[in-house]
Amino acid sequence: MTTPSRLDSARRFAKAHGFDLDAPLRVGGNYQPLTEHAGIAHLSGQVPRIGDTVVATGCVGESVSLAQARQAAEVSTLRLLAILHQSGGLDRVVQVLKLGVFVQSAAGFTQQSEVADAASDLLVAVFGAAGTHARTSVGVFQLPKDAAVELDLAVSVTPSA
Amino acid sequence: MTTPSRLDSARRFAKAHGFDLDAPLRVGGNYQPLTEHAGIAHLSGQVPRIGDTVVATGCVGESVSLAQARQAAEVSTLRLLAILHQSGGLDRVVQVLKLGVFVQSAAGFTQQSEVADAASDLLVAVFGAAGTHARTSVGVFQLPKDAAVELDLAVSVTPSA
Amino acid sequence: MTTPSRLDSARRFAKAHGFDLDAPLRVGGNYQPLTEHAGIAHLSGQVPRIGDTVVATGCVGESVSLAQARQAAEVSTLRLLAILHQSGGLDRVVQVLKLGVFVQSAAGFTQQSEVADAASDLLVAVFGAAGTHARTSVGVFQLPKDAAVELDLAVSVTPSA
Repeated sequence: MTTPSRLDSARRFAKAHGFDLDAPLRVGGNYQPLTEHAGIAHLSGQVPRIGDTVVATGCVGESVSLAQARQAAEVSTLRLLAILHQSGGLDRVVQVLKLGVFVQSAAGFTQQSEVADAASDLLVAVFGAAGTHARTSVGVFQLPKDAAVELDLAVSVTPSA
Repeated sequence: MTTPSRLDSARRFAKAHGFDLDAPLRVGGNYQPLTEHAGIAHLSGQVPRIGDTVVATGCVGESVSLAQARQAAEVSTLRLLAILHQSGGLDRVVQVLKLGVFVQSAAGFTQQSEVADAASDLLVAVFGAAGTHARTSVGVFQLPKDAAVELDLAVSVTPSA
Repeated sequence: MTTPSRLDSARRFAKAHGFDLDAPLRVGGNYQPLTEHAGIAHLSGQVPRIGDTVVATGCVGESVSLAQARQAAEVSTLRLLAILHQSGGLDRVVQVLKLGVFVQSAAGFTQQSEVADAASDLLVAVFGAAGTHARTSVGVFQLPKDAAVELDLAVSVTPSA
């Protein structure tokens, strides 16, 4: 249900990370990767997992470099894209509304925005103008699985087919 | 305005925690426990307070065990349920949309998802399929009143009577 | 497009902080200060910047006092007001829905709610009853630019002219 352009673009980024947009996304607990109501989809927070492996663990600014954290933010974004792709297709997205970026930060690390920029750039690369969004980036003390980053998203969507 | 089933279920969990779903919920500052617009209700972040007492203070993974944090997450969830109950009834909830879970975490504690699962399970126990939701769980450095957890929620609702 | 009352009130607070509600608000990355869909506007997280300067850096409860953090929360709120003012006017706001308050906290600092109260009071001073809102306040480990606070907002709005 997705026209080639957005999906092709997402696939190119996914391939560069060894990420499969069609692989089933397991959810551990009693929750959903996505809920949808009245044209708004809320996506659950995603750590940068490829298959069973969290690809970046540790604190950014310490054991994880800014460059590694930006790559991790791209992988988390790919997971958000995979959820959208598997929930009716990337073409259902009318507008990305709000991106939340949580960076597991070492003391003194203040470049959370620069980490978030990697995710923002990927969203705009895939969705174009529909991919620009409001954003909140903060540095947190710990993340699930010791992940370096976690991202969540709200988007407006057309009705599912 | 709430049919017995959801409210009865919530009351059973409340009773186990010594929590009263009908007790007035004081708000300290110039804000509301809940705002509602166009069928979406946003609920303010809730620490695990029963009456005047925050029942779990300290860092999870240090002075607060995983089991205690899960109980605290249930109490915070009961507060969210009490807000909904006192704002037109649990039966107005069409779908739980997004749960936010903030865990005051000790260094090295990475089981924020396991804490959040206790809240997710309670929501599904009370609301059934309408209780499944998107979720974001992070570990923060400090919470108001030194609370071990804080939870907020967005739900879709039918118009109030 | 804003009637005198709300804008005048906002200007009075802005003047007290040396803040200009009409100054262009630069955004660093590939995102927007505000997205709008179906009558809901999401505003990006704002650190307390006036012009190029973040006016409060460091950890609250350590190098930043509670009083300074409250002033910083007011400046972040003024930035949110400036975004709304520059996106069709303060009179478009039907109801403030949800305020997010992130406080860069020293170990043991637990007065995040008292910091957030300064922002809540300002919103109510400007918008009256339309300014009361749901709120979530947490203490995070690090914020972009070492800012003491960061605030984001969701509001319902009338269609833009």
